[in-house]
Amino acid sequence: MALDPVFTPMNQRRAPELPADLKLPKVFSSADTLLDHSVKLRLAPEGLPEHALGRMEDLVLQLARIQNSGPQPFDLLSFDSPQLIVFAGDHGISDEGMSALEQSMTVEHVLQLLMGLAPVNALATMNGFDLSVVDAGVATHINLPDAARTRAPLLLRKIGYGTRNLLLGPAMSQAQVVAALHAGMDVVRHLPGNVVAIGDVGVANMVSASLLLSRLCGVPLADACVRDDFQMPGLDDSAHLARIEKLSTAASRHRKALGPLDALAALGGFEIAMMTGAMLQAASERRVVLVDGYVSGAAALVARGLCPEVADYLVYAHRTADTGHRLMLIHLQAQPLLDMSLRVNQGTGAMMAWPLLRAAQCLLER
Amino acid sequence: MALDPVFTPMNQRRAPELPADLKLPKVFSSADTLLDHSVKLRLAPEGLPEHALGRMEDLVLQLARIQNSGPQPFDLLSFDSPQLIVFAGDHGISDEGMSALEQSMTVEHVLQLLMGLAPVNALATMNGFDLSVVDAGVATHINLPDAARTRAPLLLRKIGYGTRNLLLGPAMSQAQVVAALHAGMDVVRHLPGNVVAIGDVGVANMVSASLLLSRLCGVPLADACVRDDFQMPGLDDSAHLARIEKLSTAASRHRKALGPLDALAALGGFEIAMMTGAMLQAASERRVVLVDGYVSGAAALVARGLCPEVADYLVYAHRTADTGHRLMLIHLQAQPLLDMSLRVNQGTGAMMAWPLLRAAQCLLER
Repeated sequence: MALDPVFTPMNQRRAPELPADLKLPKVFSSADTLLDHSVKLRLAPEGLPEHALGRMEDLVLQLARIQNSGPQPFDLLSFDSPQLIVFAGDHGISDEGMSALEQSMTVEHVLQLLMGLAPVNALATMNGFDLSVVDAGVATHINLPDAARTRAPLLLRKIGYGTRNLLLGPAMSQAQVVAALHAGMDVVRHLPGNVVAIGDVGVANMVSASLLLSRLCGVPLADACVRDDFQMPGLDDSAHLARIEKLSTAASRHRKALGPLDALAALGGFEIAMMTGAMLQAASERRVVLVDGYVSGAAALVARGLCPEVADYLVYAHRTADTGHRLMLIHLQAQPLLDMSLRVNQGTGAMMAWPLLRAAQCLLER
Repeated sequence: MALDPVFTPMNQRRAPELPADLKLPKVFSSADTLLDHSVKLRLAPEGLPEHALGRMEDLVLQLARIQNSGPQPFDLLSFDSPQLIVFAGDHGISDEGMSALEQSMTVEHVLQLLMGLAPVNALATMNGFDLSVVDAGVATHINLPDAARTRAPLLLRKIGYGTRNLLLGPAMSQAQVVAALHAGMDVVRHLPGNVVAIGDVGVANMVSASLLLSRLCGVPLADACVRDDFQMPGLDDSAHLARIEKLSTAASRHRKALGPLDALAALGGFEIAMMTGAMLQAASERRVVLVDGYVSGAAALVARGLCPEVADYLVYAHRTADTGHRLMLIHLQAQPLLDMSLRVNQGTGAMMAWPLLRAAQCLLER
């Protein structure tokens, strides 16, 4: 029998058996006790109590460990050409009335990002991030805006026109998951720099995040998918119960999908799989990975299931207003940098948190 | 009999009777419902749920209200020559073993700030803040470093060489409090810009903050001054009890000091009084006031007691690791921007939070 994922800490789980055609990059743990010691010494302000810089100390340590790779001893943090990658995908489950938004809003959001009209565009520009939008599997063809109005490139990596409705079968085939993981790795491989922020766009993708949270961490569905979440504001009691019931049916249909990869195929989405691949690739290249909200958190959950060492490279940017996300961060043992009750993904929170990484750099330089 | 300050919300309290020689500036409430409506409309991202930007929306609204003063209708946020002012003062109570640090550390910290060696110097430079250090009442004369090594000006506003030991009598006379309030107002009046961040330096000044919290908000002293606070790390049980007992004796000696000004004189300090004056003056000039940690929070508490409208101008930067500060923020009904468990004041947290105000500006500009 498979081990119960609830009671087995992630880093003690047996490595899952992976399909032969899946080639995941090797990620090395960044732990280095000697480095920790020297960085802590350098960081401690004179004449102040221990841990004067609180969680900033942890952040500096994590970043220093990530960048402690060359033959030279680690000296200062440096961030080169930081990239924001927003992965877009559609979900068959949105047919079931799982989101207050029409599925066509995914394309709208993608176009806003491409034309530089979303809040995150302004923040990315302010912080010097290059934005790339990836079509991981939007349900329709995306008609690009005029070149004159385009502010960010669209990378065409469409695996399919939206996932299947997971009430009726697995959201993705194993071949699709493998292709999506490889595409995510490939996207990161072709982008420069040593910082990658990962965001997402996709109507109803938070349903997938909730289902993955429930499956991989043993959180009851009713907790992972609360009534006042922002996918479905203003839901009445009966509609809420009907929604939970539908999702429970789906979860029970896919009850054998216990491992991270099987769960991803059954309950995830193209953009989640691609984000997982992107995180693994970025970690294998020792880039800093800034994880945005609930859906990128779900990708982080899968990535950690596939390769626990990836955790060393993930910086959780913020906690959204969604209760499911709160629970997910607890299971990821992650304390995000910000808690601004955002109800938007797209990397917005990651861009808001970025100056704290710059502050970390600055504290080590003084 | 005076109203019990615990059960009277601050904004419903009778205006306290102020000494005739105290001239406080007039602060106007920034409330403007029409402005709120138009800013919310401009801010709402297309096709996203309500309150998509969560607490960033509140921040943008607060900043917009503050800057909505001219004859022109409000358009964009603008921040000019932001100032960080760090007020330094010593406390007679430090003779009683109230801090793990020697009183002489106050001067050390001031010198580090002047020479640009403290963490906050690096952060202030990164964020384009001008730093001024104010000697509000350090216990010794401050020998300035060589001009070549000086990175920030020291403003000489010394009211006295440290406050009196408040176990033996009021920390300050009424004349000293009035002088300190006026000096704080004067410091702000002579600095340019429309943003003021307020920090502090002073051994044992968190004891004053705890006493003021306890007196002005009715928080029991044992809660305001917890065992693991970072003034006295590693205190054993008996030492902790002895400390609380001493502070209770002091509080009971000053039991008649109920109003904000009397409490400030009896339990506060020169730098706290000066910060109070600075906040009132900055608010009266419609500057944004960035409140740093626990001690500047205590000044905010007094300022709100003297003039409730000042609250509209106060942006709470962060929550420190101290439980007393947590309780204080609850009583101030304030949700700070960051929660990084810092154990250092000096404006460090204010400088870390500043980029969120820049993000707010950026979100309104798009």
